[in-house]
Amino acid sequence: MNILVLNSGSSSLKYKLFAVEKEKVLAYGVVERIGLSEGLGMITHQLENDGKYQTENEIPDHQKALKMVLNLLVDPKWGVINDLSEINGVGHRVLHGGEYFKKSVLVTAEDLDHMEELRELGPLHMPANIMGIRACQEIMPGTPQVAVFDTAFHQTMPKKAYLYAIPYEMYEKHRVRRYGFHGTSHRYVSGQAAKLLGRPVESLKMITAHLGNGSSLAAIDGGKVIDTSMGLTPLEGMVMGTRSGDLDPAIVPFVANKLNLTPDQADDYLNKKSGFLGMTGYSDMRDIQKAREEGNSRAQEAYELFIYRLVKYIGGYYTALKGLDLLVFTAGIGENDSTTREDICRELEFLGVKMDYAKNKGLRGQDAILSLPDSKVTIMLIPTNEELVIARDTLNLIS
Amino acid sequence: MNILVLNSGSSSLKYKLFAVEKEKVLAYGVVERIGLSEGLGMITHQLENDGKYQTENEIPDHQKALKMVLNLLVDPKWGVINDLSEINGVGHRVLHGGEYFKKSVLVTAEDLDHMEELRELGPLHMPANIMGIRACQEIMPGTPQVAVFDTAFHQTMPKKAYLYAIPYEMYEKHRVRRYGFHGTSHRYVSGQAAKLLGRPVESLKMITAHLGNGSSLAAIDGGKVIDTSMGLTPLEGMVMGTRSGDLDPAIVPFVANKLNLTPDQADDYLNKKSGFLGMTGYSDMRDIQKAREEGNSRAQEAYELFIYRLVKYIGGYYTALKGLDLLVFTAGIGENDSTTREDICRELEFLGVKMDYAKNKGLRGQDAILSLPDSKVTIMLIPTNEELVIARDTLNLIS
Repeated sequence: MNILVLNSGSSSLKYKLFAVEKEKVLAYGVVERIGLSEGLGMITHQLENDGKYQTENEIPDHQKALKMVLNLLVDPKWGVINDLSEINGVGHRVLHGGEYFKKSVLVTAEDLDHMEELRELGPLHMPANIMGIRACQEIMPGTPQVAVFDTAFHQTMPKKAYLYAIPYEMYEKHRVRRYGFHGTSHRYVSGQAAKLLGRPVESLKMITAHLGNGSSLAAIDGGKVIDTSMGLTPLEGMVMGTRSGDLDPAIVPFVANKLNLTPDQADDYLNKKSGFLGMTGYSDMRDIQKAREEGNSRAQEAYELFIYRLVKYIGGYYTALKGLDLLVFTAGIGENDSTTREDICRELEFLGVKMDYAKNKGLRGQDAILSLPDSKVTIMLIPTNEELVIARDTLNLIS
Repeated sequence: MNILVLNSGSSSLKYKLFAVEKEKVLAYGVVERIGLSEGLGMITHQLENDGKYQTENEIPDHQKALKMVLNLLVDPKWGVINDLSEINGVGHRVLHGGEYFKKSVLVTAEDLDHMEELRELGPLHMPANIMGIRACQEIMPGTPQVAVFDTAFHQTMPKKAYLYAIPYEMYEKHRVRRYGFHGTSHRYVSGQAAKLLGRPVESLKMITAHLGNGSSLAAIDGGKVIDTSMGLTPLEGMVMGTRSGDLDPAIVPFVANKLNLTPDQADDYLNKKSGFLGMTGYSDMRDIQKAREEGNSRAQEAYELFIYRLVKYIGGYYTALKGLDLLVFTAGIGENDSTTREDICRELEFLGVKMDYAKNKGLRGQDAILSLPDSKVTIMLIPTNEELVIARDTLNLIS
């Protein structure tokens, strides 16, 4: 069976075609610059054996983008299947499931109505996510569509972890609460880590650290999320590439007054101009590390803030979990930056955390145990694979 | 020597006259409703031997309020001194010292200029604080004035604890950083706790929990604050009587859009209509506890959120301190609500925290050790006494 996994952004469409039983990727790629008024869109299509095709084109909307992708998948030269009927299901990454979607669903008309209602909780992503599903329904009317929500895995949080201390009507009428994001990633790495350890996930107290351009932590007790650092939106929590993470909330009106910003501009300021970028001019951790090596004091300060906040969160979740068996690193920084992993674990040594620093050094992008045998907490590196989870969920729901 | 301690609020003036060498309070009281357009102001004056005098009057400004207070202090019936010359110094509580004031000062003209520059960081309190000092200078021109800053004790924090991940110019040009508040209280209880234990404060890793209508935590390593929960303003951190504490910063523009609020109105919403009040309709912990007993589910949720957030912060500071010797409770809730103290400590048992629950139960307002002898962390109750610290600092600076 073949499953197509789609991730529709506001002006992009990422795709991956799986031969799902063997969990083998046949082809993948990305359509960029969809619907932009200036210039052409671009599609980059790659085969798993490294062949690569790239072209520019007018791409006015997601439906056109999807048609181009499907054409490539059955293309005599660049295709990997003979006919679209060989795609048995499509799995869509959807940003926001609100409180309604607690797990993945085989999409019905009613589900789409519910997703429409969630637009205001994810104004940048939800319109594109919904557009992606509708485009597939039109072009491939017989093919089942599955939605996998970035928030769903966190729906097990108790109220004390998800409520905010603001007037209750904001929760009841406007659904303002902590949802958390990167749920598919936290779910994948927590399951994969337990599997590699040969221990049931139900027996483990775990913190999963998804550290990338966007970063979030999850506290997972027996396989269920009890807390996570992102909130109503992905802005809360860690210091990120361009996002501020935690702030005194009074800074928002302070900055809005100072710079004469509308609420939407203030949101933009905190999401796109803050974080590492706002502190240093660099949004990418690789640039931060390079600048630190060159003695850039701003980069050093931003890095220390990033590590310090992470370590405090780990302490908070350690207390919320009342113990810790396993700390898992994943995503761009977590998978590739051994310095970050080391600097976090050094701060945790007083808890009995013992990293194998030699083994950790330079290790990238592969499943590994990074702690010494006598460490009180097992440390693991697990490259995330959200698309695989989406493909698996799709297979399960269409079978 | 007699020291007058003053705390000027926007429409109030609290005072306490100390015979400072014996640390004895001679008289104290409060002037309320200063400068309000409707109705009369009120002064309540109390002698330490329980005599009480109350009267209403026109009180247009702080200067008039101060004159009334001074008249009462030398009043033949209600006074405690014969002449104003018996007041050897005045200590003022000042909200915000910015980065300039790292300790208490004998106020000079230059200091007042610096305080004027800090107005925008404390727009509600600083004008009143400055007015209080100027009024004293005019009425008692020969008497030394001392300023004690609520932020000063926290000035030892490292950058990784006080920077926010927003564009750096906000720190450099507009002084946006974590300052922390309740510093005088954290300073008093940390010193008093170490003294009672007979241990040098330099040897202790400590968390002080100032829990009142406003609440803040401080992590204190060897007598120096390394982190605290309030930020640029007193809004950040714990769930409080009417303040939200920590939030996804994106909630601020979300709410501003939803309710059509200006930045100042959004600030007001988070400072005055949120916290316990916004969640339950009650802002006072005593009402929350009563409502919980009566089965009010909102009050239960708000209380659980308050405890949970506190416990996570303690875990975070435990990690930042790399250990914990001492946990100190103070202020309205911390001193009087043994249920809150118990519920926090129960969540910390896995760390080796052992509270003497029997001793804790019902204990109020007195210095006490609340932990069992074999507890890994000593738990203490220390009633705060900010006025005494202000009186002591004043004595030291004028001697």
